[in-house]
Amino acid sequence: VNIRLAAAAVPEQQQQQQHGPAVESPINQQHSRTFLTMACVQQQQRCVSIDNINPAIKTMEYAVRGPLVIRAGVIEKELEQGEKKPFKEVIRANIGDCHAMGQPPITFIRQVLGLVSYPPLFNDPNIPADAKKRARGILDGCKGGSVGSYSDSAGIEVIRRHAAEYIQRRDGGIPADWQNIILSAGASGGIKVLMALLRCPIDGKKPGVMIPIPQYPLYSATIAEFDMEQIGYYLDEANKWGLDIAELERSLKEARKTTAPRILVVINPGNPTGQVLSRSNIEDIIKFAQRERLVLFADEVYQDNVYEAGSKFHSFKKVMMEMGEPYSKMELCSFMSCSKGYMGECGIRGGYAEIVNLCPDVRTMLLKCISAQLCPTTAGQAVMECVVNPPQKGEPSYEQFEKEKKDVLESLRVRAELVASTFNSIEGFSCNPVQGAMYAFPQVRLPPKAIEAAKKDGKAADTFYAFQLLEETGICIVPGSGFGQRPGTYHFRTTILPQPEKLKEMLGLFKSFHEKFLQKYK
Amino acid sequence: VNIRLAAAAVPEQQQQQQHGPAVESPINQQHSRTFLTMACVQQQQRCVSIDNINPAIKTMEYAVRGPLVIRAGVIEKELEQGEKKPFKEVIRANIGDCHAMGQPPITFIRQVLGLVSYPPLFNDPNIPADAKKRARGILDGCKGGSVGSYSDSAGIEVIRRHAAEYIQRRDGGIPADWQNIILSAGASGGIKVLMALLRCPIDGKKPGVMIPIPQYPLYSATIAEFDMEQIGYYLDEANKWGLDIAELERSLKEARKTTAPRILVVINPGNPTGQVLSRSNIEDIIKFAQRERLVLFADEVYQDNVYEAGSKFHSFKKVMMEMGEPYSKMELCSFMSCSKGYMGECGIRGGYAEIVNLCPDVRTMLLKCISAQLCPTTAGQAVMECVVNPPQKGEPSYEQFEKEKKDVLESLRVRAELVASTFNSIEGFSCNPVQGAMYAFPQVRLPPKAIEAAKKDGKAADTFYAFQLLEETGICIVPGSGFGQRPGTYHFRTTILPQPEKLKEMLGLFKSFHEKFLQKYK
Repeated sequence: VNIRLAAAAVPEQQQQQQHGPAVESPINQQHSRTFLTMACVQQQQRCVSIDNINPAIKTMEYAVRGPLVIRAGVIEKELEQGEKKPFKEVIRANIGDCHAMGQPPITFIRQVLGLVSYPPLFNDPNIPADAKKRARGILDGCKGGSVGSYSDSAGIEVIRRHAAEYIQRRDGGIPADWQNIILSAGASGGIKVLMALLRCPIDGKKPGVMIPIPQYPLYSATIAEFDMEQIGYYLDEANKWGLDIAELERSLKEARKTTAPRILVVINPGNPTGQVLSRSNIEDIIKFAQRERLVLFADEVYQDNVYEAGSKFHSFKKVMMEMGEPYSKMELCSFMSCSKGYMGECGIRGGYAEIVNLCPDVRTMLLKCISAQLCPTTAGQAVMECVVNPPQKGEPSYEQFEKEKKDVLESLRVRAELVASTFNSIEGFSCNPVQGAMYAFPQVRLPPKAIEAAKKDGKAADTFYAFQLLEETGICIVPGSGFGQRPGTYHFRTTILPQPEKLKEMLGLFKSFHEKFLQKYK
Repeated sequence: VNIRLAAAAVPEQQQQQQHGPAVESPINQQHSRTFLTMACVQQQQRCVSIDNINPAIKTMEYAVRGPLVIRAGVIEKELEQGEKKPFKEVIRANIGDCHAMGQPPITFIRQVLGLVSYPPLFNDPNIPADAKKRARGILDGCKGGSVGSYSDSAGIEVIRRHAAEYIQRRDGGIPADWQNIILSAGASGGIKVLMALLRCPIDGKKPGVMIPIPQYPLYSATIAEFDMEQIGYYLDEANKWGLDIAELERSLKEARKTTAPRILVVINPGNPTGQVLSRSNIEDIIKFAQRERLVLFADEVYQDNVYEAGSKFHSFKKVMMEMGEPYSKMELCSFMSCSKGYMGECGIRGGYAEIVNLCPDVRTMLLKCISAQLCPTTAGQAVMECVVNPPQKGEPSYEQFEKEKKDVLESLRVRAELVASTFNSIEGFSCNPVQGAMYAFPQVRLPPKAIEAAKKDGKAADTFYAFQLLEETGICIVPGSGFGQRPGTYHFRTTILPQPEKLKEMLGLFKSFHEKFLQKYK
């Protein structure tokens, strides 16, 4: 969206009926009070002004699509219109958007999606039988045999069943119940509805959600939108971004003074931090959550994205079940998505939540709640079917599917190493290994003069840095302040998704930008 | 979902920490307190119980997918398993789900959806050039040329532009700005986010939303979920379900004592009531909203579904703009969907909201808010592109597209007439003409003995009636209490969507059921 145009238009009268928290985002700083007051005189008709909208929406921030990204979009338009810049294109390293960065879709997935969308394709002899079989199974599960009909709100039954079987295979046979699977629009859809469900004051205290710092801003944005309490716990940067139980305890103890903590969010593999948690770390987290009566939210959307030799993905469910009682009876919500992994089908919006040990009464309420959303898109459900029910050995698509999957993951592995090692070779940078997921989150030491200049500019120092990087190189990253970081430290998140040649170019540009930046603020 | 299984499982300990409003839905009545207390002894581990979840979720009801529909699903399973019933199949007349009831998809739409999902189809010489052109336009608007990449949160720019052009054509040239178009997952996605935006207490009073009674339960469910205040105004059944300004005034005046009314929802053509508002009625509504400083929410998802001779769809925007100032400066949100009309692509989830005269500051906040939802599914966006940019005269698909569209709408017109006239021929029924949309909402006079029997059974009398209808005929309708009705009157909503032969059969079954019902409770 062209924010410049929006800002140039005449803003709103101020009704002064109710004041939400002040908004400090760069977007809002574009309007001065004087300008607003002038507008009041001009326009008396409007009922809705910045002063009487949902204060939670004013507070929330979503850095992955924040002002930097908006500016990147404007720059792209300017380049299109022939404006001269020191670069030819914007490199969007701000968001885990695989296909946007040139990753090709998995053939099998698109064959199935094509078949269910356009059934005459069943007559195409070039489309393999297993793709047709999957598509037939999906259509048989749709009312009227069409993906154009509403599915059950929790998704098409056969896909929920396959998702449960997938989880059971993944977890070495530990049972999964298809009735605990709720298909959703990406993982976000599931996370939001489960957070909404647990949004209930306890003894007059706001319900609190423990989230890692740094975290994926979906959590902070949703907590703000739902007026819940954000309880940050710092990840241990010195220990490959692992979870330190003492820090969890500190954070919880402090929060308990004013809020009622209910949920512990763990992102594994980590976003933006790229760590893959060890089994013993997971066990400690589970013990902590059990002791403290917290519902575990395991954000496991990167479960296929594990690169470092020696790292292995352990699902919270498997570990919890293997630990036996009382842990195996704990409430757990695990989230999965079609947007990540090797498939990277972000735009289609597919995902699921597995809800474990939830009271049947509560599950009934959850199902009632999602029924008002009608259903997640059947297109996303179809993609999810391919993920949970991929071609099997002996089926015609098996080899190509496995090859395409391995190629994507292997290339990501190489890029993960390249990004971390390049950053570690730049003066002032330190970067943990990218064990998994799709991001590096290096720390950068900024010179005091740069910090001072940022302050004068009214920006956080990392945001100041990121804006200069964008304007001078076209590289769009997200400053660490969008995810949270220990005060006085500066980080940013970059994806590892640019294709190998582009990534090398990007890292080169980055390095020389940084050198110039250091010179400038020496 | 199999609620029977859920109810049979062991329920939850009662933490008694916080009590939401009592839940009286039939689902919850299945658990007695005694049973719950026993369960408490068995299970001490759970953190989440029915007593400490979001009370708004407990309160909300969504009748279109409520207990009757759940029971219908169970009956379908029982039939599959060979259980004997007085009927062979469930007729799902509860939900406007066109394809589920046998309506075929529009060829052009599915060709475009197939192409963007599975680009090798571009090589298929059987697919016409205009479908390929639309698909190419969509893919060119996607980052990396793939519908697998995230779009802007407000949707793919080229589709937003085409939606604005479509609105401008529809409204006889009145300008529409593409930056005011927000693509969404069905209309629901847009309605929910705009209600969320306006959720702000005013002078310490809860924000109120005026909705018609009867209404589409998305509104009541969302109002409950957002803890806003529902302000019902009765539609005028004696006057073809029109809006009576005196009733709007009465309702508003009463609500103002305790709440701060902000939004006026009007559904046109009506759901569940099927009316098409006259231009003069719309003008009066606009004057009322302007006088009372309400934001208009025009739910216009049935804009293509107008059947009655003499009825015509007038968009609120067109009327408002033609009325000139101050009306042409009013804030209006209009909602559209791919799920209805002639396309009926419910499962894909496409829709848009046009936001008119919204303060730029507020629009900026809206865009920030939707950014945390990433993007509406690109599949739904692609379907919307076909709706707003259909084949033009001279393009190869034009004739087939127009024929398919006309056939669907003409058949719906015939069914609309058939349903209303059949109900009017049954003793005790009266049904307004189905001027538009996809539903009839007849009133039925129930015998006092039936009302008494329902009371004993703990059900509303219309629900009691609907359950018997379901068990004896397999017809699934939604009782009027799910939409709201004047106390002491009984209605139900049925879709007009069963295919013509099936619909005739259904109406015959209905008639003979009703006669037996009257005999039984004479």
